[in-house]
Amino acid sequence: MGTILVNDQFLDRVNGTVDIEDRGYQFGDGVYEVVRVYGGKMFTAKEHLTRLFESAEKIFLTLPFTLEELTARLEKLMADNQLDTGIIYLQVTRGASSRQHHFPDQPSAVLTAYTKEVARPVADMSAGVKAITTPDVRWLRCDIKSLNLLGNLLAKQEAVSKGGFEAILHRDETVTEGSSSNIFIISDNTMYTHPATNLILNGITRREILKHCAAIGLQVAEKAFTLDELMNAEEVFMASTTAEVMPLTQVNDAQIANGTPGNWTRKLQEAFEEAVEKQCGALTETITL
Amino acid sequence: MGTILVNDQFLDRVNGTVDIEDRGYQFGDGVYEVVRVYGGKMFTAKEHLTRLFESAEKIFLTLPFTLEELTARLEKLMADNQLDTGIIYLQVTRGASSRQHHFPDQPSAVLTAYTKEVARPVADMSAGVKAITTPDVRWLRCDIKSLNLLGNLLAKQEAVSKGGFEAILHRDETVTEGSSSNIFIISDNTMYTHPATNLILNGITRREILKHCAAIGLQVAEKAFTLDELMNAEEVFMASTTAEVMPLTQVNDAQIANGTPGNWTRKLQEAFEEAVEKQCGALTETITL
Repeated sequence: MGTILVNDQFLDRVNGTVDIEDRGYQFGDGVYEVVRVYGGKMFTAKEHLTRLFESAEKIFLTLPFTLEELTARLEKLMADNQLDTGIIYLQVTRGASSRQHHFPDQPSAVLTAYTKEVARPVADMSAGVKAITTPDVRWLRCDIKSLNLLGNLLAKQEAVSKGGFEAILHRDETVTEGSSSNIFIISDNTMYTHPATNLILNGITRREILKHCAAIGLQVAEKAFTLDELMNAEEVFMASTTAEVMPLTQVNDAQIANGTPGNWTRKLQEAFEEAVEKQCGALTETITL
Repeated sequence: MGTILVNDQFLDRVNGTVDIEDRGYQFGDGVYEVVRVYGGKMFTAKEHLTRLFESAEKIFLTLPFTLEELTARLEKLMADNQLDTGIIYLQVTRGASSRQHHFPDQPSAVLTAYTKEVARPVADMSAGVKAITTPDVRWLRCDIKSLNLLGNLLAKQEAVSKGGFEAILHRDETVTEGSSSNIFIISDNTMYTHPATNLILNGITRREILKHCAAIGLQVAEKAFTLDELMNAEEVFMASTTAEVMPLTQVNDAQIANGTPGNWTRKLQEAFEEAVEKQCGALTETITL
């Protein structure tokens, strides 16, 4: 990321600083998105950026640019950095002002964005990865993609410290989502995932997956499931912008089914790759199905 | 705040910037304190700074200084700025590193601190202020004084937009605390306040108040109370570092008792001022009891 974006300025990375009284720094008072880039093209950019505006509205933050202006800036950022396969990270905070809990009268939002080369995790997507389960201690507005991520961090850290790729969160016995993903189980030719309520973030990859189920003959139930149903599912996977459709073949110390990615998960991975290729062109590396 | 503190460096305010990839900015991955200063002297500094270390430990963040070193830096900061009556704000984040949810292997914590002149709100403390009630949507680790404050901000903003001073938060019918304070009610010569569980921050002013109840003959119950008990209490007040013992004489559209600060609240204000004077010397302005 040689060049970064701060508001409408393209700066050298070394100049990427913000004020100590930026409300993002003192309160996590802001929202963000991560957009996936394949072969120099953004995937589902409009969906991500539309959600950014929706998240901002939910915290009463007016963004000082249009979706089109933002898209143009991100296109330029990507070009300046000659990004091929990776991500664009962008966040907007309510900006700097003398610290007080309520909103400043004249907030001056601060946009920061940069790109990063990030390969598709094809080996993990081919083999499947391990997840752990841990209580969901987050707030009740998980539908907002906000910068208040400490609950997510602590869960992910617990997963990583136990050799896991992701932490599956649950409120009492009900699975909500992953620390940075949505969680899906498949049993009896039906895919279950938590409905898009205030308890989860309605992932863009989640939405993409839901579009392809009918075509492959998989039934869908946007219905919460329990930890017990998770452990006994035929297939389990997670979905996120960077990890796409990622099979979860082990949860805590137990294998899911026979410990290999299931057939429905494979079909969804295939459908997802096709969707990417349709928007962004041929992938240089694909999942070993 | 002409001079600010960044780690162990005393800088001019204009140089108060942090990296865009500081985990405080991207995740709210950090903890903070606000220390009250009266007549150039910190009040309950040790309690605040001890709690900072405790909050840090709860998020597995190792602070790269001792409590004594931190105290010395804050003393110098206060002296450099010739602070008389005000606050010291300080926060520590897990520092800058390439964005990932789990902790970096070698985190480099970033301390920032500054001072601000803030008068005691003696007029409000004399007359009492209005509060509103709103659901508590925050996470389940409110015992950590973290930078994830969006839930608090939204509640405070709602209060201010309705002409209130504070938002009283409740889970279902149970009052937890204020958006930036602890909440107390008094009925039948007994003061009730939510026990110091994971659902509230155990305020330093809360602890100070608890110390003085016996001496003035007020019974104490660290026991949660309902919204209904709140609305029917003889006295209601909030406590915080900057607002001290602040009478709440109106909640939503209803007056509490007769709409004036109650006798027990007055006695606690008096006891609090005495405690401040004992540690920091004579106050220049006091509450009209």
